[in-house]
Amino acid sequence: MRDFLPDDVRKREYVIGVIKEVYERYGFEPLETPAAENIETLMGKYGEEGNQLIYKILKRGVHEGTGEADLALRYDLTVPLARVVAEYRDKLPKFFKRYQIQPVWRADRPARGRYREFYQCDVDVLGSRSMIVEAEIISASSEALTKLAFTDFVVRLNHRKVLTGILAAAGIPEEKHTTALIALDKLDKIGQEGVLREFEQREVLVGDQGATLLALFMEISIGIVAEALNHAETYLVLNSAEAKAMNEQILQRLESFIGSHAVGLEGVKELTQIISYVPTSMVLIDPSLARGLSYYTGAIMEIQVKDLPGSLGGGGRYDNLVGMFSKESIPACGFSLGLERIIVVMSERNMFPNELSSYSPDVMIAIENERLGREALSVAQKLRDDNPEISVLVYPQPSDKLQKQKSYCNARGIPILVVVGEEGTYSVNGTQVQRDLISDAVKMMKEKHHVQ
Amino acid sequence: MRDFLPDDVRKREYVIGVIKEVYERYGFEPLETPAAENIETLMGKYGEEGNQLIYKILKRGVHEGTGEADLALRYDLTVPLARVVAEYRDKLPKFFKRYQIQPVWRADRPARGRYREFYQCDVDVLGSRSMIVEAEIISASSEALTKLAFTDFVVRLNHRKVLTGILAAAGIPEEKHTTALIALDKLDKIGQEGVLREFEQREVLVGDQGATLLALFMEISIGIVAEALNHAETYLVLNSAEAKAMNEQILQRLESFIGSHAVGLEGVKELTQIISYVPTSMVLIDPSLARGLSYYTGAIMEIQVKDLPGSLGGGGRYDNLVGMFSKESIPACGFSLGLERIIVVMSERNMFPNELSSYSPDVMIAIENERLGREALSVAQKLRDDNPEISVLVYPQPSDKLQKQKSYCNARGIPILVVVGEEGTYSVNGTQVQRDLISDAVKMMKEKHHVQ
Repeated sequence: MRDFLPDDVRKREYVIGVIKEVYERYGFEPLETPAAENIETLMGKYGEEGNQLIYKILKRGVHEGTGEADLALRYDLTVPLARVVAEYRDKLPKFFKRYQIQPVWRADRPARGRYREFYQCDVDVLGSRSMIVEAEIISASSEALTKLAFTDFVVRLNHRKVLTGILAAAGIPEEKHTTALIALDKLDKIGQEGVLREFEQREVLVGDQGATLLALFMEISIGIVAEALNHAETYLVLNSAEAKAMNEQILQRLESFIGSHAVGLEGVKELTQIISYVPTSMVLIDPSLARGLSYYTGAIMEIQVKDLPGSLGGGGRYDNLVGMFSKESIPACGFSLGLERIIVVMSERNMFPNELSSYSPDVMIAIENERLGREALSVAQKLRDDNPEISVLVYPQPSDKLQKQKSYCNARGIPILVVVGEEGTYSVNGTQVQRDLISDAVKMMKEKHHVQ
Repeated sequence: MRDFLPDDVRKREYVIGVIKEVYERYGFEPLETPAAENIETLMGKYGEEGNQLIYKILKRGVHEGTGEADLALRYDLTVPLARVVAEYRDKLPKFFKRYQIQPVWRADRPARGRYREFYQCDVDVLGSRSMIVEAEIISASSEALTKLAFTDFVVRLNHRKVLTGILAAAGIPEEKHTTALIALDKLDKIGQEGVLREFEQREVLVGDQGATLLALFMEISIGIVAEALNHAETYLVLNSAEAKAMNEQILQRLESFIGSHAVGLEGVKELTQIISYVPTSMVLIDPSLARGLSYYTGAIMEIQVKDLPGSLGGGGRYDNLVGMFSKESIPACGFSLGLERIIVVMSERNMFPNELSSYSPDVMIAIENERLGREALSVAQKLRDDNPEISVLVYPQPSDKLQKQKSYCNARGIPILVVVGEEGTYSVNGTQVQRDLISDAVKMMKEKHHVQ
């Protein structure tokens, strides 16, 4: 967990502002939930690994001594959303499109772009089973990245039912599917060898069986995403017909491999539909995408850039999660952008606007004599009232010599210095000015400074 | 802890936006700290009651079973600030003016405007002992409230050293001062009787002694704040000379009561200076103001309105807190506005701009046939690209009958309906339009709707 000094906060707020604006313009509405949820709300929703990574809060007061926890810190924004939708069903529109930008906490091992406290920027649509939802969510999160000046990302798309079909066709018994997916999800991180080891350790598939399955995965997807990422800039200028052809090729392979497995074919059909809806050409079907969270039921997706292992964000359909909190089952699909990962890449690539890191107030007021404190505050007030765009710093230690105050102004890079002097004298950057002309003088200086 | 549905979030963001803008214009810079601090950072900083109200987080992994806590949720924004300043001293300007708007958590009993998770909006200035800091902080937080359309609040001002002087003059031994202040701080909540009971229970003063002290407190302040609040609107139009006269009267009383107590007189002198600096007339010295937190060392202040028990915000000087985290002692003074309390009063008084509670997207796109999903998303995209101000909702269940889609548009109060129809037909609010003219038609509709 980290502190964010002013320059960091400005960068974070810039990214959040861009994402928020895009989501608002897609008709998503803001939601916020508390940092702590009842512990039962979270436990069991993120698989076994998730349970261990959840931060748990001790009971209070006389119960503190028991060492028991009754609350837990938010682990993602999806489970709290499902709880909210179940709880406030009649206060929300039939199709609830919400965005939520808040921190979550995971007791995970930190890595580049991975922290124990991090912000997720989520969009979700509740109430519809149509694949147009998946397509719109892909568009919205892609546009957010595009507006942040990303040009070279790939949206990987897969489907839980397709994975079920593949695993079934590969002969993995159903009760081992979750374990197999958790292992496959780590392909990026632990490589083929690591996945095989997990297969064996957890007795998903032993010996050759595991190797055969992995080979199949690699064959179906033939590293198409890696290829696309390597040529991302070229890829994005491919026309959508070419992208379509690539996806169709994979869909055909999937269909023939899955054979007659009904559930698997349903997944293939839905993928086909999503692809037909998405108006951009940066979506690639990637059968090796698994995603670890256990609540997904349909399409799953991740956005990737080549210079960051893992993803900039991910999401999918989870039609059964709301039903865990109410009698009514409500279909849902969403996508989460990772603020910290976006910032890591943007920082390394120098993608932030310059003004974000060279902030200073516009004006500093120096005070010749301690007795002039009230007058200095009044002048500052007047400056702010007269110029809605201006920020004014009053030097906070008027007992300092004027020279020291001026040096501070220089050191902070503040372009305009107003001195409140003895006997009703005032100066703006060294020029004597009457009190009622200070605002005009500052305005002129600011424009001049801006031009330079 | 509460959920915030879209209308709530919009109100919260409106208030935060106004406060932030004011603070930025005073030259304060943003800081953010993690939700969880090491437990030792927080324990012992808020008095004994504070220790109990802190949410503590269980150790993770194999240590979970021990029932021990190593982290704790942020209890206020001041202690984390002190830690940050000690930790990053050389990265920060000599006078660090920061604002911070983040949630804090206290396992307190909930009440009107008091929640277990709540946002504080803090400004602090570090590095100066000048009373101009107190004056500026009072101005900045007052201006934030004024910009939110509050016209009737009072800033109560007191000083820890003055309180020490009063307690000493009343014969309370020094080791009982903190206990006495904690009791006095609750005067608003538990009344004179309650304070007397606490005095007796904690053996601060027994029998008549307690009653005598309380009577003194009441006499010194002669209910001047209650009076001011009752006539707040009149009070604010009093000229500053009249306000000055009231404060001078109290300062004189204090001086004569405290007698020759050196520390107490220092406090009186600083209060006199603050009053001489503050350019507004809404500040009243109130010797009965105590404030519970144990880290204050100098001036203390609270902002009050008559229709909310407790305060909208409070703060003070804490010159020793940073020293607890580093060898260097750095003087500091700050003020914290309570977001939830401000919102409670603004809601009850109907102070929010109307547009905040009547939000809807500008445009809904209805889809005549499921196959037109991609075209609907493209039209939405084009609308957003062409009109930077517009938000567009694509109906998320294109299998629904057109009539049902139109009803949804009406029910949501969305003013503009675009229908993507069969065979390349498009309509905007019922009028047929060519594809490349949809954006213009929507723009016109929006202007028309705006005028109505």
